[in-house]
Amino acid sequence: MRVIPQNVQKLIDEFASLPGIGPKTAQRLTFYLLRSSDKDLGEFGSAILDLKKDIVTCSTCSNIAESDPCHICDDQRREKTSICVVEEPLDVVAIEKTGKFQGLYHVLGGVISPIEGVGPDDLFIRELVSRLKEGNTEEIILATNPSVEGEATALYIQKLVNPLDIKITRIARGLPVGGDLEYADEVTLSRAIEGRLDY
Amino acid sequence: MRVIPQNVQKLIDEFASLPGIGPKTAQRLTFYLLRSSDKDLGEFGSAILDLKKDIVTCSTCSNIAESDPCHICDDQRREKTSICVVEEPLDVVAIEKTGKFQGLYHVLGGVISPIEGVGPDDLFIRELVSRLKEGNTEEIILATNPSVEGEATALYIQKLVNPLDIKITRIARGLPVGGDLEYADEVTLSRAIEGRLDY
Repeated sequence: MRVIPQNVQKLIDEFASLPGIGPKTAQRLTFYLLRSSDKDLGEFGSAILDLKKDIVTCSTCSNIAESDPCHICDDQRREKTSICVVEEPLDVVAIEKTGKFQGLYHVLGGVISPIEGVGPDDLFIRELVSRLKEGNTEEIILATNPSVEGEATALYIQKLVNPLDIKITRIARGLPVGGDLEYADEVTLSRAIEGRLDY
Repeated sequence: MRVIPQNVQKLIDEFASLPGIGPKTAQRLTFYLLRSSDKDLGEFGSAILDLKKDIVTCSTCSNIAESDPCHICDDQRREKTSICVVEEPLDVVAIEKTGKFQGLYHVLGGVISPIEGVGPDDLFIRELVSRLKEGNTEEIILATNPSVEGEATALYIQKLVNPLDIKITRIARGLPVGGDLEYADEVTLSRAIEGRLDY
């Protein structure tokens, strides 16, 4: 005899399969939705079902988009000479929010990770090299995450791109703004000292 | 020009409207789902749309159920003489997991909260009193949360039930198992001392 009705348990299981959502949170979210109106529930369900509708992958930068080429690749005001290489579409969102980058992007679709069986051929690295060989690019910014896999992927791309006579930069590693030197880990602090700038 | 496609933004907004899900988490969940298969996405969407299908409120205990009376009220092996009063259906799930209670439940559907405009008439309190007046009940356990609203609701019910000659108990307040006396707040520690048991 089950305490939780089948349909309710099913949604709990669906929520719990999402990253960062534990069984307790999944229960809480489901029981919250049980109290919401049929209209709200319908809109939420439709939003999930429609998620991938009208969504394409830009054939130039591999970002998710509503058109191909995407509105960034297609924007004549952007600097076509610099390409920022990121892991995921969300990274594009994060960098766009800063307003500090006016160039183009290239989304790898992940990082090289032998443990998870992801090799260079599983990412959009070949497409990046083709783009660079077209000859319009003066700088690529490697903006993969400062994690082990992100660093390895950046290093791999750097070696591939090196012969092409393009300026290669890596986003700065250092103390996060508002952070505390005392609590920074050694590696971050080492990077912050190594990467110090003229003041 | 928007960075995030419309359908994607819509699901982000839906997730962000859930309690405890901030905008960053909503983004992360949505972009995770973007990478999942159409089949998985369909199942998740359907689970939300079907959530309330075949779900009824038990006319006896007000718990959510697949049948009326619910399988707990209908179970002949349960002790019909004690009723545990809880705020929400999730509280039934939590108590059932302990296996320490063999009686029946009564779900109030919330707590008395003047700030949120919830009065006694908005809860299933009248239904509780009717049940008690049927005369089969020997004990009611007030298992509302140990919050201000939960305590007030328990007190309100206690006053209503007092004339009925039924034993009224309240779940114990004290130190959580694995907790640390040093870090307990004063009110909890006071309750733990007041509620001490013979050893």
